[in-house]
Amino acid sequence: MIHLVITAGGTIEDIDEVRKITNTSTGQMGVALCEAFIEAMKIKANETGHEIAYTIHYITTITAVQPPENDHIKRYFVTDTESVLEVVHNLSQKVQLDYFIHCMAISDFTTAAIVPVQELSAEIAEALMEIPASQWQQQIEAILRQPNSAVSKTKKVSSKSDLMLSLKRTPKVISQIKAWSPDVCLVGFKLLKNVSESELLQVATKMGVDNECDLVLANDLQSVQAGMHKGYLLHHSDLVGTFVGKQNIAEGIVEKMLQLKGI
Amino acid sequence: MIHLVITAGGTIEDIDEVRKITNTSTGQMGVALCEAFIEAMKIKANETGHEIAYTIHYITTITAVQPPENDHIKRYFVTDTESVLEVVHNLSQKVQLDYFIHCMAISDFTTAAIVPVQELSAEIAEALMEIPASQWQQQIEAILRQPNSAVSKTKKVSSKSDLMLSLKRTPKVISQIKAWSPDVCLVGFKLLKNVSESELLQVATKMGVDNECDLVLANDLQSVQAGMHKGYLLHHSDLVGTFVGKQNIAEGIVEKMLQLKGI
Repeated sequence: MIHLVITAGGTIEDIDEVRKITNTSTGQMGVALCEAFIEAMKIKANETGHEIAYTIHYITTITAVQPPENDHIKRYFVTDTESVLEVVHNLSQKVQLDYFIHCMAISDFTTAAIVPVQELSAEIAEALMEIPASQWQQQIEAILRQPNSAVSKTKKVSSKSDLMLSLKRTPKVISQIKAWSPDVCLVGFKLLKNVSESELLQVATKMGVDNECDLVLANDLQSVQAGMHKGYLLHHSDLVGTFVGKQNIAEGIVEKMLQLKGI
Repeated sequence: MIHLVITAGGTIEDIDEVRKITNTSTGQMGVALCEAFIEAMKIKANETGHEIAYTIHYITTITAVQPPENDHIKRYFVTDTESVLEVVHNLSQKVQLDYFIHCMAISDFTTAAIVPVQELSAEIAEALMEIPASQWQQQIEAILRQPNSAVSKTKKVSSKSDLMLSLKRTPKVISQIKAWSPDVCLVGFKLLKNVSESELLQVATKMGVDNECDLVLANDLQSVQAGMHKGYLLHHSDLVGTFVGKQNIAEGIVEKMLQLKGI
């Protein structure tokens, strides 16, 4: 049995009960990858003359575009970064994963605190009165990260005053994947905005090395927004393919991934 | 010609190019209101024996649930609070509006600035060195609202450090509606979370008075989340109806609205 994980769509972090921080991602790339993999399995079955057993573990949000019903697809619905980590961890404990395509737009930040701007200013001013100037910066930073005047996240925050939102970094999902599943063939994605091709490839290569990716798809938001989605496929620091359009990108990834670790 | 405006769904404010602050709202109430009004117009046409000319100006987002195709519906797609204001203002300049049902979940806040927490701390500490302690609080507040160390909103913000997000209040759309269309029959919505019935009705009444609403639908998020959406319809401070379920709420609003200003 081949086990493929695809993460798709964008995470949703709560600010409060009704306000959310979302990452823009339609989920279309995940759908294209799903279709490309199913198609590749059909072709392989035709070539070899026998069916291939496989499961696509599809991790996404309810707001993302969904792949059509298919017996090979097992769906897992997530919301925030924490919930993605939990599903990925559980999966890697239960199943020997073969391929992992991580194209979900994961929030880098979650809400640490919300605080009315006047109350935060008063809290900082008061705290500084009691300490020497040499310690101010450190003290200010501590308060900004965790103000006593913060309001509860489980309420709907009042709109009566301007607010400061303290955002802390979330754990990087991609850095955990090989730690939890050392033998998986990992495909990462790197999205930048309006950079040169060489900078994009350099940053994507570094991301791949840092997280032990076998392949990295590098893309620029400008080409996505322009409707001419261009993707550069990297195997370590080698550019092994350039594709235009989500379907071509998806087919390119699946083909290369199966070459790297034919099962 | 009768002109009805319905606003529905939740607004989307940019944090940066890929991160957004969204307000949770499916848009289902707007669809129910649309259907209830169309039905009421059909019944009226049957009673009187002649067709009624009307247009529903439907202001919503692309992510909200949409009412089915209908020649009476003119759609306007918006994103952030600013874009809602613009559409409402343009409409009220061009058309003599008769009814306005404002059920969109409008963001109370928009991003004023994003700033890495260390840089903000350093900026505040440095600024305070030069002024007497009596002015600290005011100075801190000014910096929090508009830090010099803020990063540009038009980039994708780096995820290398924790961030502070400065949120400023958006102009209240509902307060502009009667200012721009003094003769419109205005239906406002008030959503609170987990409060007593009496508090909900009190807050909703005040909101209605402040914004010259003819009717206010008061509801509690708990009943929405529990799938038993309960709505209290207020005419000034009088409770004129209590409904359970979106369709019943929508029919109740439309019936009362047409009674108040039969056209």
